[in-house]
Amino acid sequence: MSFESKLKTATSRHGFLCLGLDTELEKLPAPFAKSSDSALKFNLEMIEISKNYVAAYKPNLGFYEALGTAGWEILKKTCAEIPKDKILILDGKRGDIGNTARMYARAMFAELGGDAVTVNPYLGSDSLAPFIENPEKGVYLLCLTSNAGASDFQLFPSADPLYLRVARRAAEWNKNKNIGLVVGATHPAPLASVREVAPALPFLIPGVGAQGGSLSDAVRYGTEGGKIPSLVNFSRSVLYASSGPDYREKAEAELKKTKAEMDSLLSVRV
Amino acid sequence: MSFESKLKTATSRHGFLCLGLDTELEKLPAPFAKSSDSALKFNLEMIEISKNYVAAYKPNLGFYEALGTAGWEILKKTCAEIPKDKILILDGKRGDIGNTARMYARAMFAELGGDAVTVNPYLGSDSLAPFIENPEKGVYLLCLTSNAGASDFQLFPSADPLYLRVARRAAEWNKNKNIGLVVGATHPAPLASVREVAPALPFLIPGVGAQGGSLSDAVRYGTEGGKIPSLVNFSRSVLYASSGPDYREKAEAELKKTKAEMDSLLSVRV
Repeated sequence: MSFESKLKTATSRHGFLCLGLDTELEKLPAPFAKSSDSALKFNLEMIEISKNYVAAYKPNLGFYEALGTAGWEILKKTCAEIPKDKILILDGKRGDIGNTARMYARAMFAELGGDAVTVNPYLGSDSLAPFIENPEKGVYLLCLTSNAGASDFQLFPSADPLYLRVARRAAEWNKNKNIGLVVGATHPAPLASVREVAPALPFLIPGVGAQGGSLSDAVRYGTEGGKIPSLVNFSRSVLYASSGPDYREKAEAELKKTKAEMDSLLSVRV
Repeated sequence: MSFESKLKTATSRHGFLCLGLDTELEKLPAPFAKSSDSALKFNLEMIEISKNYVAAYKPNLGFYEALGTAGWEILKKTCAEIPKDKILILDGKRGDIGNTARMYARAMFAELGGDAVTVNPYLGSDSLAPFIENPEKGVYLLCLTSNAGASDFQLFPSADPLYLRVARRAAEWNKNKNIGLVVGATHPAPLASVREVAPALPFLIPGVGAQGGSLSDAVRYGTEGGKIPSLVNFSRSVLYASSGPDYREKAEAELKKTKAEMDSLLSVRV
């Protein structure tokens, strides 16, 4: 199945939520020992709790690499447990010259079984090519990130700021209908501008939960009233909803509440 | 010891060559079976052969990730065998928001024992912070990469092109004297422009061997006649100098020839 179809099916069935599996040993709820086994156990519980609320899962590779070889093994086992009808996004923000990008594509798609990856656009089109050549696999290109440092280069004032140039090129490169854009919800005006230059691209939107971005803007510009299969990501606000033994109930309550808010925002616009 | 001192000592003792350990099973010389054990064995041989010619080693993480968990283990064992007076650069081109960048810094410095990393500047200053806070560790920020795609964003025509803005900001951020720039030798005029806006920063220069960039320009603008501890990287032209059983001799001959060329270029300018 093409990435485009899989994404459309997943979002029409399960809505527009994505759960970021940014699993940190130091932040695991009290019942867990601080060991790599705990990280895997916690991930499997979070997948179980969330599967009725989300369309996608997004492990951020940094959290696994920090655990060394054991972390890579946890990541692999976590990926294997993601239900097959969900979108598995490997958030590694990789970007390298062609022969190396091909290696990263092999790691993300063949080794870990991802449906999509996040890629950094700094190295340009040839660094993207190995990730987009297969229409069954998708790429979310970093466009506008949710952090303050986005102002250094992405948002640097210019007649044609970098983040918009990236969005425009991504739309041109989208021959296989498998490119999306990472656009942080912490910048509402730019979110609207990206939608303008890339009217059909799905977004992957971080920055709404712990980082304080607006869910309403994310739903509005991301999905255009539900028509575009964008994903709004939540990580810390769900995973670490409670540090006590009620972490499961609190995480599920947070997902339920967020899904209801999104559904209500979508119904207003229909 | 500070990264600045370690880099200066290494280059003054061993010269300005860096060996890129871009180890690909498919390209290993004929005597090797195509297995992960072979990749490690090959790396250890290359380290042994090259240690009298180079100041630094640069494993590119993509090649190891492509081998999955086994690859991460080979990378770790390879890193452990790099002689302590050499600079170990982990070329992962990572870049993420602050809390994730901290995880990557832990992976690269604490888990793998790197002296330095390569980082992608797209996410700006806060994504760089966790990598540069310790003066004993260094960062090479991507400025101008050696691939054709560099023209999409880095070299995109503008009164103040992106690669020069990155170079200028890097010079400002260099409070701990541990920031360098990745500047590809495939673009000679820009190499001179980067040196102009960042007069003191060490460069890490790819693109000279298999990619065809000029060694003379690399030495000239990189080291300013030997005064700046820049590193010129060679990977494929050394590692895969021969696909037959004479791969050791051919690799060493390539290193010897390149080191002699560099020494001669340096002596002309003194």
